[in-house]
Amino acid sequence: MGRKIINERLKAVRCGLTDRRVESIIVTKAVNVSYVTGFCGDDSWAVITARRVYLLTDSRYTEQAQKECLDCQIIERSESMVKAAGGLLAKLKSIKTVALEESASIAVLRNLRKNLNAKVKPVSNLIESVRNCKDKGEIKSVTVAIEIAAKALKKTRRSIRCGITENELAGKLDFEIRKLGAENSFETIVAFGANASKPHHKPCSKKLKKNDSVLIDFGVKYKGYCCDLTRCFAVGEVGGLYKKVFKAVEESQAAAIQMIKAGVKISKVDAGAKAVIEKYGLPVYGHGTGHGLGLELHEGPAVSGKVKGRLQAGQIISIEPGVYMPGKLGIRIEDDVLVTERGCKILSSNCPH
Amino acid sequence: MGRKIINERLKAVRCGLTDRRVESIIVTKAVNVSYVTGFCGDDSWAVITARRVYLLTDSRYTEQAQKECLDCQIIERSESMVKAAGGLLAKLKSIKTVALEESASIAVLRNLRKNLNAKVKPVSNLIESVRNCKDKGEIKSVTVAIEIAAKALKKTRRSIRCGITENELAGKLDFEIRKLGAENSFETIVAFGANASKPHHKPCSKKLKKNDSVLIDFGVKYKGYCCDLTRCFAVGEVGGLYKKVFKAVEESQAAAIQMIKAGVKISKVDAGAKAVIEKYGLPVYGHGTGHGLGLELHEGPAVSGKVKGRLQAGQIISIEPGVYMPGKLGIRIEDDVLVTERGCKILSSNCPH
Repeated sequence: MGRKIINERLKAVRCGLTDRRVESIIVTKAVNVSYVTGFCGDDSWAVITARRVYLLTDSRYTEQAQKECLDCQIIERSESMVKAAGGLLAKLKSIKTVALEESASIAVLRNLRKNLNAKVKPVSNLIESVRNCKDKGEIKSVTVAIEIAAKALKKTRRSIRCGITENELAGKLDFEIRKLGAENSFETIVAFGANASKPHHKPCSKKLKKNDSVLIDFGVKYKGYCCDLTRCFAVGEVGGLYKKVFKAVEESQAAAIQMIKAGVKISKVDAGAKAVIEKYGLPVYGHGTGHGLGLELHEGPAVSGKVKGRLQAGQIISIEPGVYMPGKLGIRIEDDVLVTERGCKILSSNCPH
Repeated sequence: MGRKIINERLKAVRCGLTDRRVESIIVTKAVNVSYVTGFCGDDSWAVITARRVYLLTDSRYTEQAQKECLDCQIIERSESMVKAAGGLLAKLKSIKTVALEESASIAVLRNLRKNLNAKVKPVSNLIESVRNCKDKGEIKSVTVAIEIAAKALKKTRRSIRCGITENELAGKLDFEIRKLGAENSFETIVAFGANASKPHHKPCSKKLKKNDSVLIDFGVKYKGYCCDLTRCFAVGEVGGLYKKVFKAVEESQAAAIQMIKAGVKISKVDAGAKAVIEKYGLPVYGHGTGHGLGLELHEGPAVSGKVKGRLQAGQIISIEPGVYMPGKLGIRIEDDVLVTERGCKILSSNCPH
């Protein structure tokens, strides 16, 4: 990653620290460590001070860190992470208070307090709020993740045939993703027929029938960035209800996408999608209409009725309305969308329907 | 799961609570919730008091919880988890202090303190220590996980041919696991040749050569229980160094397994395995010799030199010595072993070498 991009991120993080009246932070969440250092490995923490960034890692990752982190001082630890952090902060004598991400466990907080001379102050949503709007490189990575997902789904569609099990179909899709050199961003959901009424269905040994339906909810991770897509396919004769519901969900999604634009109230987008389902007299889905995605599959902003904020240009969000009728069917359509000043760009229009 | 087993577990957990001078606990870690309630879903917490167990879940899981939890009061929440916990504890007026697992995040602790009238006291290792020794049902589940892993590996071995990539081979193995109705317990590692010198290697597009070596580190999860296995295969002519190192690692593993028995110091097993590698004049591996496994892939006890405890009957541990020579090779052999009063039982001897 370029020096310039990392420096911009660090500048924003340091502004957040100033707002919270702290000068330094211990970053423990892996995706946040990647975000502020460029390091893609695991089991490492970053310490950001007013002037420098340190990466605390171990011998397994030193070589990788030297390649990936440009302006970072790499500290190879042999003791525990907490002790290594304690050792580093003891040397940086000017630091009296250090922030710690609230996503860290209570155990980490307790151990740090035992090992640090500085005061530890939990903070929330500091780096996450910077990550909210994506830069060009990040948009590119999500776009490539979607391209790979679309290719894999195109190949897998040929296997949607009477007799295949949910497990096998999910396995085939995952295999295609792997062959394309990428990985799943989460465990693939494949649900046939009425199984799709459970939004969190786990693929099982159920076989596809002659007249049946298939829901596939899956994603790809590329260079650390996630996409999240859902497609529904009808097989043979699916009946009038399925067709009606499918149309309603399509219309609901289109209505939401139509509303997306920087400055728009997020709760309005959620309400807009749900109003269409209601208009059709169908049960309104219990989950939110979408969520932000990037280094995490679910990140800010949540697209739900409870959220108070407004959309910002550079956010990438999923839009995924659905209808769930236990014992009958489940239909969800999910695309990933980039919020812009003038509206939005659907990033996943190349994914087969 | 049987009432009797759950009740025994709860009895042990309540003893742990008494030792820590608390009467009740909020269980937030998913595997621990499963362990004390029998519930296999996600996003749910358990609250254990002196007399009762409550499961806080949402509408997606109510039906499943009613089937899986026998003696549990199921509370379907519509508000946030923290608020639901607050509401429940407000009704249980006798509770003045409630324990919270230290694996919970700082954010959860803060929010609970805001929403609870009772005092919140973080505790560590309470349910984990009960989970340490496995009962018959748990041993059975790990055994079945290993059987599935062995079957999948047997089928995948046929694909170990010149020209296949690491990614493809990993994908094939994962697909076989899925076809057998199970899932991976972690992301499969496939490393060809010198790639195996990195213990955390990620499969890539590297192709298998005529004379080459393959390391596969993988696992299966069955009914929530994990296994963890590593096998190394030589392809064509691999040369004298590979053969020597393979022999050393085999001998190292055998030496460790020979020592395993209830009551033996854990650090001795680690030292015993490493002494063999040293005897051969080879670089001693930096990781521990093994780890406990069960509902988590890595749980107590860690089999390392730093650990102070002794082995106990009923623990299931991996034994996985290795030799890593950057630019040259990496060999690790890993089996899963049940500790018994008289010695141990290798659970994975059916997994192909």
